[in-house]
Amino acid sequence: MAGGGAAGSALSSPWRALLQRALDGNAHLRHSTYFQLATVGAGGWPANRTVVFRGFQEHCDKIQINTDARSNKVCCQRNVCVLQICWYFTDSWEQFRISGIIDVIDGSSADPAKLQHREKAWFKSSVKSRLQYLGPQPGVPVVDDQQINDVHLDASAGPVDAFCLLVLDPEKVDYLNLKNNQRLVFTRIQKEDGSSDWMAEKVSP
Amino acid sequence: MAGGGAAGSALSSPWRALLQRALDGNAHLRHSTYFQLATVGAGGWPANRTVVFRGFQEHCDKIQINTDARSNKVCCQRNVCVLQICWYFTDSWEQFRISGIIDVIDGSSADPAKLQHREKAWFKSSVKSRLQYLGPQPGVPVVDDQQINDVHLDASAGPVDAFCLLVLDPEKVDYLNLKNNQRLVFTRIQKEDGSSDWMAEKVSP
Repeated sequence: MAGGGAAGSALSSPWRALLQRALDGNAHLRHSTYFQLATVGAGGWPANRTVVFRGFQEHCDKIQINTDARSNKVCCQRNVCVLQICWYFTDSWEQFRISGIIDVIDGSSADPAKLQHREKAWFKSSVKSRLQYLGPQPGVPVVDDQQINDVHLDASAGPVDAFCLLVLDPEKVDYLNLKNNQRLVFTRIQKEDGSSDWMAEKVSP
Repeated sequence: MAGGGAAGSALSSPWRALLQRALDGNAHLRHSTYFQLATVGAGGWPANRTVVFRGFQEHCDKIQINTDARSNKVCCQRNVCVLQICWYFTDSWEQFRISGIIDVIDGSSADPAKLQHREKAWFKSSVKSRLQYLGPQPGVPVVDDQQINDVHLDASAGPVDAFCLLVLDPEKVDYLNLKNNQRLVFTRIQKEDGSSDWMAEKVSP
């Protein structure tokens, strides 16, 4: 199964249709946009936490996640940062394990287009969500509960330093449907001309 | 906050009461016993998948997970195998991130007590669950769908080679309640006499 060339791959990735169907079919559940993000943390040990799906980047299949730059979610080895999402849809019993290279976009990015994506993601978040980036650093001991509540934000102000956009470019999607016990593995194949195709293989669950 | 000494720690771990309350409060949801298991896979990259909570080991706080020995879920570095669970309760909006050292128990274990635990876990599983360990190796290409269905099992037969019991001994539990925005981190402290205590700290979410 091929997903088209460079221009075509963005909208025709074969796994994207399955994921969109799962999103639509589970849309009545608030948690259907939550998934678990695994990274390799300090000392080479695995780390895992629930994050919110912030949509695909326009005109492509890249997955967006907002994160607090201070919470150290991303793992890198030799300047390549890789993670794996595990996204389980509780109503349709479907699981998507999506892995790929991540682009970490904070305010120091030199790319104007990336900074624009980050700003867009900031304003797309609710004011309540944005407030968390103004609070104390995640994970530090709480000495005064009141301190957390004493944060105010101008709704028209742009992203603060702690706000970080993660953009995952999927390279492999492992799809499992527990209702019919079917499993499909989609792998992106990079071609010599720089374009890419998706290969799909049915494997045992 | 201390959780008692060696004898007492098993039943008085302070996070265990929170987890039991979440399990009870979300028991009406089939998926409340599912969590995501992060490991470090080949090449040092993170891997993540949904697994089923198979209960605590008797008289202690160790968490049991059944797995297929052929699917290579466990990461080890210098003979120490560590993983992190991310367990999100969709109704109560509570997250438990539990990390610790894992004991991988397959049929080759030399410890009779461990083999007994494994056998117990096998018979506690439904016959349908057990059947998956007799099927083709997970992840290998499917050439003949019929092959998967042509598997039979004697319900009184003991665990097959592929059946593996993972036992996680928690060392750190990071609890987050999204309804009241409270976060508590529980850390196990090993004492000089071999016993252990739990330390709890309130941290910013």
